[in-house]
Amino acid sequence: MPYRAPEADILFALKRAAGLDRAMKAGAFAELGDGLLEAVIGEAGKFATDRIAPLLRVGDRAHTPIVDGRVTMPAGWTETYRAWAEAGWNALSGPEAFGGQDLPTLLSVATFEMWNSGSMAFAIGPTLTIGAVEALFKHGSDALKATYLAKLVSGEWMGTMNLTEPQAGSDLAALKARAERAGDGTYRIFGQKIFITYGDHEMTDNIVHLVLARLPDAPAGTRGISLFVVPKYLVNPDGSLGARNDVVCAGIESKLGINGSPTCTMVYGDGGGAIGWLVGEENKGLACMFTMMNNARLAVGIQGVAVAEAATQHALAYAAERRQARAPGWTGEGMSPIALHPDVRRMLATSKALTAAARAICYSCAMAIDMSRRSEGSEAERWAQRAGIVTPLAKAFSTDVGIDVANLGIQVFGGMGFIEESGAPQFLRDARIAAIYEGTNGIQAIDLVTRKLPLAQGAAVAALIAEWRAAAAATADLPGFGETAQRLAAAIDDLAATVAWFAAPGRDPAEALAGATPFLRLMSLVAGGAWLAGGAAEASTEGDADAGAQVALVRFFAENLLAETAALRDRVVAGAPSTLAAAAFLDA
Amino acid sequence: MPYRAPEADILFALKRAAGLDRAMKAGAFAELGDGLLEAVIGEAGKFATDRIAPLLRVGDRAHTPIVDGRVTMPAGWTETYRAWAEAGWNALSGPEAFGGQDLPTLLSVATFEMWNSGSMAFAIGPTLTIGAVEALFKHGSDALKATYLAKLVSGEWMGTMNLTEPQAGSDLAALKARAERAGDGTYRIFGQKIFITYGDHEMTDNIVHLVLARLPDAPAGTRGISLFVVPKYLVNPDGSLGARNDVVCAGIESKLGINGSPTCTMVYGDGGGAIGWLVGEENKGLACMFTMMNNARLAVGIQGVAVAEAATQHALAYAAERRQARAPGWTGEGMSPIALHPDVRRMLATSKALTAAARAICYSCAMAIDMSRRSEGSEAERWAQRAGIVTPLAKAFSTDVGIDVANLGIQVFGGMGFIEESGAPQFLRDARIAAIYEGTNGIQAIDLVTRKLPLAQGAAVAALIAEWRAAAAATADLPGFGETAQRLAAAIDDLAATVAWFAAPGRDPAEALAGATPFLRLMSLVAGGAWLAGGAAEASTEGDADAGAQVALVRFFAENLLAETAALRDRVVAGAPSTLAAAAFLDA
Repeated sequence: MPYRAPEADILFALKRAAGLDRAMKAGAFAELGDGLLEAVIGEAGKFATDRIAPLLRVGDRAHTPIVDGRVTMPAGWTETYRAWAEAGWNALSGPEAFGGQDLPTLLSVATFEMWNSGSMAFAIGPTLTIGAVEALFKHGSDALKATYLAKLVSGEWMGTMNLTEPQAGSDLAALKARAERAGDGTYRIFGQKIFITYGDHEMTDNIVHLVLARLPDAPAGTRGISLFVVPKYLVNPDGSLGARNDVVCAGIESKLGINGSPTCTMVYGDGGGAIGWLVGEENKGLACMFTMMNNARLAVGIQGVAVAEAATQHALAYAAERRQARAPGWTGEGMSPIALHPDVRRMLATSKALTAAARAICYSCAMAIDMSRRSEGSEAERWAQRAGIVTPLAKAFSTDVGIDVANLGIQVFGGMGFIEESGAPQFLRDARIAAIYEGTNGIQAIDLVTRKLPLAQGAAVAALIAEWRAAAAATADLPGFGETAQRLAAAIDDLAATVAWFAAPGRDPAEALAGATPFLRLMSLVAGGAWLAGGAAEASTEGDADAGAQVALVRFFAENLLAETAALRDRVVAGAPSTLAAAAFLDA
Repeated sequence: MPYRAPEADILFALKRAAGLDRAMKAGAFAELGDGLLEAVIGEAGKFATDRIAPLLRVGDRAHTPIVDGRVTMPAGWTETYRAWAEAGWNALSGPEAFGGQDLPTLLSVATFEMWNSGSMAFAIGPTLTIGAVEALFKHGSDALKATYLAKLVSGEWMGTMNLTEPQAGSDLAALKARAERAGDGTYRIFGQKIFITYGDHEMTDNIVHLVLARLPDAPAGTRGISLFVVPKYLVNPDGSLGARNDVVCAGIESKLGINGSPTCTMVYGDGGGAIGWLVGEENKGLACMFTMMNNARLAVGIQGVAVAEAATQHALAYAAERRQARAPGWTGEGMSPIALHPDVRRMLATSKALTAAARAICYSCAMAIDMSRRSEGSEAERWAQRAGIVTPLAKAFSTDVGIDVANLGIQVFGGMGFIEESGAPQFLRDARIAAIYEGTNGIQAIDLVTRKLPLAQGAAVAALIAEWRAAAAATADLPGFGETAQRLAAAIDDLAATVAWFAAPGRDPAEALAGATPFLRLMSLVAGGAWLAGGAAEASTEGDADAGAQVALVRFFAENLLAETAALRDRVVAGAPSTLAAAAFLDA
């Protein structure tokens, strides 16, 4: 039951749900015309299916042990990575001046969905490299760009992000890693970083670490953090590799999942100081890192979609083969496929619908990012605000969906679902990290409520709500949508009511924080449902080949999953007092 | 952060939520008086905390490899098991005639909660032994009882259940294992059984397998299945062990969790036939097995409670220690404990409240089982029907809670939650199986909807609903309950509406099956909420020391978790058509 890239669903999400077709008709994204979009999706699908997916179980079994001081990658990993980079996939979104193709985020996100469905442990490596490209391109000096960017864009070298320390996870203000000025324009870096994904390996000849550290005279807190480039091997002026830098991998974590990716403890400066170069300005490192992290959040969201897609396909294939008992209406010989049992059908339909909703959100987020870069002035600002609002939904909702769908997939498998050989448990184990890293999902919800809802005095969210109301209304007179219009309208009312609750003057911050996570889910259900509904309405009107399937999915989503918004609204507006009073039974 | 038996919560659930205090005042359960109840809970808590909990990580790391043909148990496992059995714990619920203490199911369930919180992989072994005791005591011949029961009751030998075959999981009609009459009153058993928990090991000198198989002239389907005792070693007339029987462990599964328990593929009869003895009548094996399975379902439900409790304690302890950022209102030095952040508090409170609700359901189920055995005539029948209704709730809701709470626990741990060393992932990995075995949770929901709702023409469910309405009303005028009375009343209305929907004449069976799982959760939220509320009202009125904590927990449950019932009702009564039409987007 191998993964197959779901090209039709991806193209629906791009063109219809995220609005690429409308945007192209309006003259945008001309570079994707003449079949390029479909060709790229098709080729990426082939590579993901044929080359990456076969690594999925291999990586999980092998882990990445340190043998003779070297991090050992699973069999086939290095060859596949090099073939992938040589085919140009790493360069898809990179800047043209450094060899990239500068194609839209939309396309990058769609291809990364497929790489991650093939193997999340594989795809997380390039995800970090591309984050490093973004940070260096935006904040690095010309000299740094000249030294590193072309190799990172091509994938000849990989990049890492070094933020976390034992005492500094969600709260980067607590960072202790030190940087000292060497007097020659370079710096010496000292300290320990943990949870560094792809922190060490020999898949590439060099690794470019981006490291947050404090200068001796830095202010306390987050305004005293600087960002440095610290290469594993120093780079000579001619671009060749020089001496080993003073950075070592001191250990590999034993994790629940994504075992094909080395999660390293990195030690800087134990031999006198790792040589680093400043990115951007001193003490302004967090701003540089946030550029990178914002896009990384969408990249993690797509991991949730990707694992959900792979797990759904895996469960669907098993349910079509596995026979037990006789489903209602079954007239065939003997036992029926379990896919026909209504309770299994419920699990499969829920999996497929949640995956589609999360995909619609992630792709719509990518659209907003692309449009903000392709617009000017207030239009660009409007799209940037939208990207800001949708990013926490994309990250948190999608990764929750990844966990929930992987969990449902195990249930569809029954007893075999608990056996590693079936492959079902790995999806849950892999998916679990995505709700944690790049800012836990709770942090995403807090970001949404405290920083994103107030954007443009609430006008940014109001514009989205208006768009979603229009999408709901568009389904009202079309066949096959059932109660979609009414149910979406009711869910949007729930959303509007909670938005008003958060905006009420004098709202207690603690109460707002207590409701943040339920609110994020509420808004995501509306966003996913509305974008899918608008897309399906358009597909239906335009007579797309898969319109019937998309309409049936939207109807299922509306009539089975949207009613949850009322409970979420209720938890937001009424649940905080008893939550904040929970010490009475938690500290007992 | 080791597990500590939650004696106060367990006693609250027993005495107040499940009504043991009221029953004792009415004269029942006299054997638990004079402090015996508290003494047993206290001693069991000590053993679980001091002896079993230290095995948790050991078992997970060691697995149970076959070395030189022998299943190797993790270090300390055998010694601890023997000490546990020698202390009399295995005999707690066993029949007095065979050395048991014949104490109530209520007490057995409470102690098994603690054994499972210590290590589910450890406790699942005795769980199966006790199931074997029940089946043999109820259906075995006097000769079989004389040979096996005393040793199984004491725990000197362990028992197993052999149902599943590769093609026969949820559908036992597909069983192929064969039994042949040997002519001397014994049988020869042939066939392969999979997923046999504690199928082989050397923790005890003998293992007593209960095996389902078909006689040559048996009718097809489930009415042609017989149950046999097949001991690992034959038992001589004097009780000493004789020859090895023809049954071998052909392999150990590599699983997601409960790795300390050997999950075996058992092969019967490859050397000419395993010698077996019939339990009950020929072709009536399934009825015997169902006796055992019904109680096993409650025993699995308590595994969900147990892992949820352990994971909640684990997360609470970490959240009290781990410091990041400053929570609203924090006036201490530096960073605050994350437990004070409202979003973390929400996760902890949700974990604790769901665990308490699942516990209340499981203990109330045990109460119904005990009362059905201690009553006569229609009263006994009434309690038996109640046990029948509550058993699927106890099994499915509690095991879903086990997964959800373990998942929340990982999230509370943040990045450390993904690292195996933290212990957080193991709870999710262990808990995952409980939603699958002993009848998947989907099967439980189908059992509830198709067989339990119609009991006594609906009067059995109606009586429960009336009891829950009274519990809701009892909180109305007491301080501290907030909106509990109104919210419970609304949830009970949702329950009553869905019960009426299922009972409507001409209800399409496929639509009913599509709504079974949401309905089970709806009914469980009401049951757990109402039993907790009634218990807290009683605790409050009686002035219990922990009444304040229990009332605060009920209020949190009512104001944060109960609103979900409206969405579940909606999914039941309106979601089926689009679910049954899902082929349009699933088979695409």
